[in-house]
Amino acid sequence: MTYFEEYELGSTRQSHGRTVTEADIVLHAGQTGDFYPHHMDAEFAKTLPGGQRMAHGTLILSMSVGMLAGEVNDQAMSYGYDRVRFIRPVHIGDTITSRSEIVALRDHAKRPESLGLAEEKVEVLNQRGEVVIAFVHLYLVNRRPRSLS
Amino acid sequence: MTYFEEYELGSTRQSHGRTVTEADIVLHAGQTGDFYPHHMDAEFAKTLPGGQRMAHGTLILSMSVGMLAGEVNDQAMSYGYDRVRFIRPVHIGDTITSRSEIVALRDHAKRPESLGLAEEKVEVLNQRGEVVIAFVHLYLVNRRPRSLS
Amino acid sequence: MTYFEEYELGSTRQSHGRTVTEADIVLHAGQTGDFYPHHMDAEFAKTLPGGQRMAHGTLILSMSVGMLAGEVNDQAMSYGYDRVRFIRPVHIGDTITSRSEIVALRDHAKRPESLGLAEEKVEVLNQRGEVVIAFVHLYLVNRRPRSLS
Amino acid sequence: MTYFEEYELGSTRQSHGRTVTEADIVLHAGQTGDFYPHHMDAEFAKTLPGGQRMAHGTLILSMSVGMLAGEVNDQAMSYGYDRVRFIRPVHIGDTITSRSEIVALRDHAKRPESLGLAEEKVEVLNQRGEVVIAFVHLYLVNRRPRSLS
Amino acid sequence: MTYFEEYELGSTRQSHGRTVTEADIVLHAGQTGDFYPHHMDAEFAKTLPGGQRMAHGTLILSMSVGMLAGEVNDQAMSYGYDRVRFIRPVHIGDTITSRSEIVALRDHAKRPESLGLAEEKVEVLNQRGEVVIAFVHLYLVNRRPRSLS
Amino acid sequence: MTYFEEYELGSTRQSHGRTVTEADIVLHAGQTGDFYPHHMDAEFAKTLPGGQRMAHGTLILSMSVGMLAGEVNDQAMSYGYDRVRFIRPVHIGDTITSRSEIVALRDHAKRPESLGLAEEKVEVLNQRGEVVIAFVHLYLVNRRPRSLS
Repeated sequence: MTYFEEYELGSTRQSHGRTVTEADIVLHAGQTGDFYPHHMDAEFAKTLPGGQRMAHGTLILSMSVGMLAGEVNDQAMSYGYDRVRFIRPVHIGDTITSRSEIVALRDHAKRPESLGLAEEKVEVLNQRGEVVIAFVHLYLVNRRPRSLS
Repeated sequence: MTYFEEYELGSTRQSHGRTVTEADIVLHAGQTGDFYPHHMDAEFAKTLPGGQRMAHGTLILSMSVGMLAGEVNDQAMSYGYDRVRFIRPVHIGDTITSRSEIVALRDHAKRPESLGLAEEKVEVLNQRGEVVIAFVHLYLVNRRPRSLS
Repeated sequence: MTYFEEYELGSTRQSHGRTVTEADIVLHAGQTGDFYPHHMDAEFAKTLPGGQRMAHGTLILSMSVGMLAGEVNDQAMSYGYDRVRFIRPVHIGDTITSRSEIVALRDHAKRPESLGLAEEKVEVLNQRGEVVIAFVHLYLVNRRPRSLS
Repeated sequence: MTYFEEYELGSTRQSHGRTVTEADIVLHAGQTGDFYPHHMDAEFAKTLPGGQRMAHGTLILSMSVGMLAGEVNDQAMSYGYDRVRFIRPVHIGDTITSRSEIVALRDHAKRPESLGLAEEKVEVLNQRGEVVIAFVHLYLVNRRPRSLS
Repeated sequence: MTYFEEYELGSTRQSHGRTVTEADIVLHAGQTGDFYPHHMDAEFAKTLPGGQRMAHGTLILSMSVGMLAGEVNDQAMSYGYDRVRFIRPVHIGDTITSRSEIVALRDHAKRPESLGLAEEKVEVLNQRGEVVIAFVHLYLVNRRPRSLS
Repeated sequence: MTYFEEYELGSTRQSHGRTVTEADIVLHAGQTGDFYPHHMDAEFAKTLPGGQRMAHGTLILSMSVGMLAGEVNDQAMSYGYDRVRFIRPVHIGDTITSRSEIVALRDHAKRPESLGLAEEKVEVLNQRGEVVIAFVHLYLVNRRPRSLS
């Protein structure tokens, strides 16, 4: 249970790696209903830059968020993402890792006495060290309750 | 095949509805590795506001993008999202629809002669008409090639 | 290993029962890409006769074929179905069983000395004993090789 | 919303392509309970013609129906298939497309004033242009309501 | 329906084969929440003995139990496993079979007149004939009811 | 990275809770091929003690192992389970948690200088605090390398 006061600007996290498989793409198409040939048709994909089927952007985003979901912090709540950018395609067999850094800590506009805002910059890298997706994960975090005295 | 010149500010799209099921949440936990008790533990969830397990934010985001993936447009490429906000929780049995509107059409900064930028505001609504997630979907769209003359 | 000579007109088979779950429908939508609101949108489905989401026809057909796939018979090969008819909708929670009967045994037109054709009439029943799907499953079956003498 | 009067004999449809993956076969075995070694055992499959695991017939049938499920037509209802034939095996990595043609338009026997029958011949082709499955998809389609006058 | 009296010491069973696929591992990670890099990260796995991702022990155990689940015997109930041992890793593409032998038949300590205990030794072999997992499956089996006389 | 010397007899771990869903059972049947009516047929299950479909033993075992898979310890390797016992059925909607305790720490018989054996007793409890499965998880753990001096 980590309160806002314990968040530190510049602190970082790093996930384990995970290989993006054909099965992941098939399952994500099945979960979302997005069967675009860019993701699902190996023959068509030969005509694309890279020449291969590409993972859905939402798959890599979802996986990277999950890869950084470590210990539950009951004091924090995810409330959105900013500047999600799909920078490079992810192909079947690529292995991705997520790394993150706390880049901003601010008061909550309306409830500054009880809530803080944390911005965690996340970058997802492939096995060649190239950034494939980047985004900022936004959290609402409770401040430590003041002791009565 | 729709070129940037054919995009219209204010044009809208509307998806079919889809009921968010317990199976969707189980599958999304399995895809992402996020088994937080907020999503997976019905007993714990009784202690949450709403009293029920909540769908993962990335599940609803992914589903809503897929629900609006209609005809393939070979001239457009998704390159990111801005201002993704999780506004209300989505519970098992809620039925969501996505609606969108083109809210900005701009020149691409570096390649204005061949590319435009389209911003599509997306709102996901539950069966009570409440917005549960909102975001802006960003597209790079090819301009119509000039005929030689 | 059962040869064509051992197939008997009128012989029957009966499967165990299986409850059709919401998860089965979600998985079948994911496997086929058919997210029609008749299958996936509980709110829309209230406007349908029956008032509920309906299982995909191909789901019930696929399940019923699988339910009768017992011991492998290396001498038989499935080559198609005739007169597949969707007679009643199957809803979430219905429990289906498959029963079948050999209704025709014929020579193969081109290779009557080595192959026979078996027609197995299949009926899928729900927990009220109503037929929901019926079809004829067609098999090519090897005749018993003649002993040399 | 297309009424029976708008169906045209000889009109055709064509799906996007989709690569049949090992994951699809694993998921279909899991959905149907058919774990026959022809589909699941790569060692055994070396002894088969083709030398590889084969997709389930019901998988390819289900996928091809889904691939042609485009816009929802509220006036049409699928009621069955005729002459489903498994013509060639489909192996892991094959890419299939579905094409169809309206081959018959008839009055409904009992309710000719309100319903028509449409027969759509479907052929599923692999990446070499070979037909792997063929069948006729049957639809009941509402006739356009007569205006009162 | 086989009663305890019909179980024979030394009787054996043999399953069909099944190839362990990348999809199986992805699905098992998703079912259990175990995304350890030994199973999921092909880059990391290059540093392991064998140099490849390994199947989860619980995956191979679960698959092998399922592979031997043949005809339902209403008189027997699985109540546990003894001495489960993970002997060799199973890699993607390995094909496993299960074989078993009844190695002990004993009276139930508290209800010897109505129940027997059967111990079935199970070995799972890969395509090279190497044992990868071994365990003893324990069953409670009803004795044949005595006829009244 | 925890060496054998750091394992403590009597130390305990406790997982988060997880609700066992109908989707989990459907997916486990699909992963294992075990479609016994005890797990899959709600009508048949009305005749069982408890009157409901029961989760597969291997599902609960697999889930409980996964629920305790926390931080990766590169010094430990799972090599089996002892005395796995299915004590009470788990039904759809039950919420399980896993708790464990180190109950034995021993030298490895053949390589006592470099390896230790840890036995972790695991109990899986339902939402009523009843033990549903118990087993002992066995680990091989590296001893801390001696510093050269």
